[in-house]
Amino acid sequence: MKIYTKAILFLGISSFFTINAQNPVHNYVDPMIGSEGVGRVFIGPSCPYGMVKPSPDCTVNSNSGWLPLPKEVTGFSQIHVSGTGGGPKYGNIQIMPFSGALDKLDQTSYRAEENVKLGYYETVFKENQIKTEITTAEKASFYRITYPKNASKELKIDPGFFLGESPEPEGREAQQFVGSQIEIVSDHEVRGYSRIRGGWNNGRAYTVYFWAVFDQPIAKYVTCKDGKFYANQSSQFDSGKKTAALFSFGKDGKQELNVKIGISFLSELKAKNNVEVEIPHWNFNTVLSALQNKWEPLLSRIKLSSDTSEEYKKMFYTGLYHTMLAPVDRTGENPLWTNDEPYYDDFYCIWDTFRSSSPLITLIDSKREVEIVNAMLNIYKRDGYMPEGRSGNDNGRTQGGSNAEVVVADAFVKNLKGIDYELALKAMLKDATVPPGGNEEKEGRGGLMEYLRLGYVPYNVPRAGNMTIDFSYNDYNIATVAKGLGYTDLYNQYMKQADSWQNLWRSDYENNGAKGFIMPKDAAGNWLDDIVFGESKIQKPTFKYTPVIIESPWYVCHWCVFFYEANSWEYSFSIPHDVPELVRKSGGNEAFQKRLDIFFDSKLYNVANEPSFLTPCLYHWIGKPYLSSDRIHEIIQNNFNATPNGLPGNDDSGAMSSWLAFHMMGLYPNAGQPYYLLNAPFIKETTVQLENGNNFKITAKNMNAKNKYIKAAFLNGKPYNKAWIMHDDIMKGGELVFEMDSKPSTWGTTILPPKK
Amino acid sequence: MKIYTKAILFLGISSFFTINAQNPVHNYVDPMIGSEGVGRVFIGPSCPYGMVKPSPDCTVNSNSGWLPLPKEVTGFSQIHVSGTGGGPKYGNIQIMPFSGALDKLDQTSYRAEENVKLGYYETVFKENQIKTEITTAEKASFYRITYPKNASKELKIDPGFFLGESPEPEGREAQQFVGSQIEIVSDHEVRGYSRIRGGWNNGRAYTVYFWAVFDQPIAKYVTCKDGKFYANQSSQFDSGKKTAALFSFGKDGKQELNVKIGISFLSELKAKNNVEVEIPHWNFNTVLSALQNKWEPLLSRIKLSSDTSEEYKKMFYTGLYHTMLAPVDRTGENPLWTNDEPYYDDFYCIWDTFRSSSPLITLIDSKREVEIVNAMLNIYKRDGYMPEGRSGNDNGRTQGGSNAEVVVADAFVKNLKGIDYELALKAMLKDATVPPGGNEEKEGRGGLMEYLRLGYVPYNVPRAGNMTIDFSYNDYNIATVAKGLGYTDLYNQYMKQADSWQNLWRSDYENNGAKGFIMPKDAAGNWLDDIVFGESKIQKPTFKYTPVIIESPWYVCHWCVFFYEANSWEYSFSIPHDVPELVRKSGGNEAFQKRLDIFFDSKLYNVANEPSFLTPCLYHWIGKPYLSSDRIHEIIQNNFNATPNGLPGNDDSGAMSSWLAFHMMGLYPNAGQPYYLLNAPFIKETTVQLENGNNFKITAKNMNAKNKYIKAAFLNGKPYNKAWIMHDDIMKGGELVFEMDSKPSTWGTTILPPKK
Repeated sequence: MKIYTKAILFLGISSFFTINAQNPVHNYVDPMIGSEGVGRVFIGPSCPYGMVKPSPDCTVNSNSGWLPLPKEVTGFSQIHVSGTGGGPKYGNIQIMPFSGALDKLDQTSYRAEENVKLGYYETVFKENQIKTEITTAEKASFYRITYPKNASKELKIDPGFFLGESPEPEGREAQQFVGSQIEIVSDHEVRGYSRIRGGWNNGRAYTVYFWAVFDQPIAKYVTCKDGKFYANQSSQFDSGKKTAALFSFGKDGKQELNVKIGISFLSELKAKNNVEVEIPHWNFNTVLSALQNKWEPLLSRIKLSSDTSEEYKKMFYTGLYHTMLAPVDRTGENPLWTNDEPYYDDFYCIWDTFRSSSPLITLIDSKREVEIVNAMLNIYKRDGYMPEGRSGNDNGRTQGGSNAEVVVADAFVKNLKGIDYELALKAMLKDATVPPGGNEEKEGRGGLMEYLRLGYVPYNVPRAGNMTIDFSYNDYNIATVAKGLGYTDLYNQYMKQADSWQNLWRSDYENNGAKGFIMPKDAAGNWLDDIVFGESKIQKPTFKYTPVIIESPWYVCHWCVFFYEANSWEYSFSIPHDVPELVRKSGGNEAFQKRLDIFFDSKLYNVANEPSFLTPCLYHWIGKPYLSSDRIHEIIQNNFNATPNGLPGNDDSGAMSSWLAFHMMGLYPNAGQPYYLLNAPFIKETTVQLENGNNFKITAKNMNAKNKYIKAAFLNGKPYNKAWIMHDDIMKGGELVFEMDSKPSTWGTTILPPKK
Repeated sequence: MKIYTKAILFLGISSFFTINAQNPVHNYVDPMIGSEGVGRVFIGPSCPYGMVKPSPDCTVNSNSGWLPLPKEVTGFSQIHVSGTGGGPKYGNIQIMPFSGALDKLDQTSYRAEENVKLGYYETVFKENQIKTEITTAEKASFYRITYPKNASKELKIDPGFFLGESPEPEGREAQQFVGSQIEIVSDHEVRGYSRIRGGWNNGRAYTVYFWAVFDQPIAKYVTCKDGKFYANQSSQFDSGKKTAALFSFGKDGKQELNVKIGISFLSELKAKNNVEVEIPHWNFNTVLSALQNKWEPLLSRIKLSSDTSEEYKKMFYTGLYHTMLAPVDRTGENPLWTNDEPYYDDFYCIWDTFRSSSPLITLIDSKREVEIVNAMLNIYKRDGYMPEGRSGNDNGRTQGGSNAEVVVADAFVKNLKGIDYELALKAMLKDATVPPGGNEEKEGRGGLMEYLRLGYVPYNVPRAGNMTIDFSYNDYNIATVAKGLGYTDLYNQYMKQADSWQNLWRSDYENNGAKGFIMPKDAAGNWLDDIVFGESKIQKPTFKYTPVIIESPWYVCHWCVFFYEANSWEYSFSIPHDVPELVRKSGGNEAFQKRLDIFFDSKLYNVANEPSFLTPCLYHWIGKPYLSSDRIHEIIQNNFNATPNGLPGNDDSGAMSSWLAFHMMGLYPNAGQPYYLLNAPFIKETTVQLENGNNFKITAKNMNAKNKYIKAAFLNGKPYNKAWIMHDDIMKGGELVFEMDSKPSTWGTTILPPKK
């Protein structure tokens, strides 16, 4: 009884929002943006940070499940991630409607059409004209399947399916089958689970339990194990073989079959409870509007002026939407330990999301960010290290640094309450002092002992280059928190250690007109021009290392490179805590400007990946913020739009999207530090409704295609001459007005952004 | 149908054994030996290496569940371990018969009597006169509960119960509740699970699923969650709270209630399948005799002459029995990965069992040992390291070295087939080269980097002393396998590294009349007399370290000591690969003999723990095997017997018991090396039926209380003058005859046992 009261209360609140939202901003979310090409975003329905993410699976090798037409659909599974690269994860508890005999598992179909909006997915299959509509609650998905008149109504439930299956038994980054089970409970209920290990983060086994409910009685079924069919067995227990079931609901009765699928990471009964609590009815539209009403208050925390173009509104709100798809709120669904703290999974991965996703969540919904940080600290307490690439309840992958440090420092400098920062400092220090041993790829810092001994990670340790750079920044983050908590010795120690990147700075090295690069060095201190690498596939036994080289997959494996997913040109700009020293080392302001210009003009800049996220803003530090703005506008205009191809790189759980959303407002955070860089916005008026009740408005007066430069700025009416603003100033509320002009001005050229 | 055929076939085979065993040796197994005092053996029914081990739980703090009368019984749970120390593990899926209202969970009762034999447990409760009898199959237990006439028949099933619960939320070595669930399936079936983490090995969460079946219909029930009762809810899902159910079977009908409980680590349906496959009937005695018939052929691999005393037969066969209780065969029950290889759990722990348990399993049942080693290699492949203290599907604890190396080397030198020794060498080298990082207590070698850099583990690294000694021996094990596989460089490297113990040998240190001890040294190379330790509870800030000191719990925590569970006197004898060098360092034969005499005569020898297992045999290396025999006979006579107090220390999964069994035969292995030391046996004729079809017989002619010395020995009729024998010589079959005499002879005094 208690449970139902809660649900009704919730619906009451939802209606309240619906009524008040005359022109809801969630209508501007287009889940298809970034779905094609490299974006790889999840296109199905999802609640904010939603655990259940149903979507079609188009082949077994898609990261998000979905691929564009005319690709086939193998079925609809309930758990996905958004925007990821590498080997796919999840794709569990697949269902598939069909018409025909209960004699084969493969019911692959082709889509005749497809319609997607926030919280809603619809497709009609070409061959059998079956229409499938999907929406979802937090922990239970809802399917409305409409069969053609006189067609027989069949459905497959396949807990043996998962994405990223490889014929190779222990294929790296492939998901591996562990077990599955299916059990027909009554003529309208089915339970079971799927147990899978591996995937991109090489995680331990995770189990996805389900409880499916139909609104029509099962007329006939067969169960299936290991490819064999059993007409008279209502269950197939887990014997390490794939199980599934095919159901017929007959030809008679209504053409519409509704299916609710409760999901849980604890048990089938918990999945049943999830569906009962969240969807105690059979109304598809009620589920859909409840979902929309969860998004609306979050998205509308930031309001754009009404004259904003449809395209910009779509790009912006879809950016916010993508940012809030991950990490995933699994509070109450943790099979590893019980407590009252929030539990989040799918940090996928922090290397991608620390830069702009976490800061954007903090700006929109800081209570959520507090929960996320607390979940990270809980993971540290129970699993030993904070997560970096956690998924399926297992820390499993690091790409470079221990970037949880940035997330913690960002929360700290932005004064987020409700976090035990003393514990957080311990967690950071664990990363910085205790080598993860055999688990260098899983958590903590690989190459830590060498880093501490030599001041850099020597070549031959995988990803030595970006690890050195990331560790330096992570050490700065530790110094930040240590200072704030009053640990002066720690502060001094880590502040010094934060200079470690300089130990790989090869100052006399020239390339493409720039001088000084982060370059590989061996443990004996020798710079390496020619590199011997045992796993070289083509050019043996050495290859020439240069700042523009793309090492993988030509010379070494993806994980064995010096610089992960980028080269020295890109990473030699990536010193977010000490740009002034970087400028000095690069030869001073003029040389640094030239270097940036070469970088962007010669297409050395890679818009598709995170290491260069801050680089377009670096002109700020040489007193030329208008050049930053020029670059940013050029980058966005050339690479981002509101089409399915509208994201130029893997969205990586919202990383790319949050970068865009910040820049459209004219703000860009330097994550881990308490300020935002200011640039010419894309929106004339942006209003942020802060959680503290204040509003902060950014207005660009006289902005048009010609007037794209900031002439002057005023904060609450007073002249504001810095091209950066403190987080605290935003939190106080008020208005920042930019007066726009057709040519660059001296605004923001004298008081440079903070340095180390 | 297929399943039933198998079961019938199996029963057929069982009957065959029963018929042929006129005087079955399993009757000599007394599960009560070692149950009281420090032995802590599991006293309930178990198949060999059996997954299910039902037993009464007498308080929540017993390691084996059981405690002697008059302690209360809280219930009977299905999973236990045997002989362990530290925080308890398991104790899952507890049931408890009672008579009365379904209104309270606590149904604690007192035993009026108790009867235990192999495979059988029986007790009658004092207050309510309910009789409970238990037997078990491999994966399903069987309860026959007899209620008094006219009593109402009630039963509790409590998946919320577990052993080792602590009021402290994250108590070290305490088990922690994660979740549980219960669900009444029909009027005679109940399903559910218990999910628990922690325990002695600090393991990740494990889940024990059950499917219980009754032979009488449930008349009434209440379910329970978090202390509240629900009369109308047939299930309680997992919401992170403890769940249970109380059942009434009424007053009418038969007084006997039979309960089968299938157990699985995969799922409830798998548990159901386990009970269906293993116990497809309601005959208690059939289950019991099937169990006995599994033990009989294993136990009878070693036959004792008929004139052996009842007490010796009991001590010996119970020793074999204890040795085969662990590790536990969980093939087909691994929730972490699927393959066709065997899967074993509860290596609890190898530090205890490598010395005599593994060698005894190899002698009795080498195919089993091959499976166990392959399971260890599989764990290495999937989890990164071979196990040391694995339980609940998680490597979780090391006490000293990476002793899996000894197990592998022992299999290698004894020529066990069906093991990929190249893979095994890789697994060993992982231990020896890759520090386990933050997981020093979990797997691999803690303090490895220091060990490799300094040649010893310096003080301040926990357990530095015994780690140095164990690593030295483990390195010798690696050298052994490397040599056998033809890796000469590796062999040379590890053979040299096997001398590392010498770096902690403080040659001028004198204590109690002996000179030279393994003593603590800091990283700078200074010997430490006075030790500063921050966690000192009583004597701060320093304490004097001496070879007789017991550091824990007086000065430092149990895990922070220099020598784990022993002192320098004990560990300074523990160099199993280089006794001749130890003798030399101790001042030569005479000084060494004196040292051994002081050790035993001054009660410095600790019979209760494993580090001194080999020490009584060390007289062999100074050419006085009769002194070894004297010590061994004295130790056994004074400390071992056939009573519940018959084991002088924690049996540790059969370690203590296998030490006894070997010595009773006159053999003692030096695990990891291909020979056994020979001593005066306790048994006149022992015949080992080897798996290769050969028999090996050890005969002690003219042995009596006076004639306790070996005058001469003959192997297959030829004089045999060595006090040690190669494993190969045993495998060839034949007879070793000792001629006994009343005084020591020169036998075995000239050809000393092998050296490094």
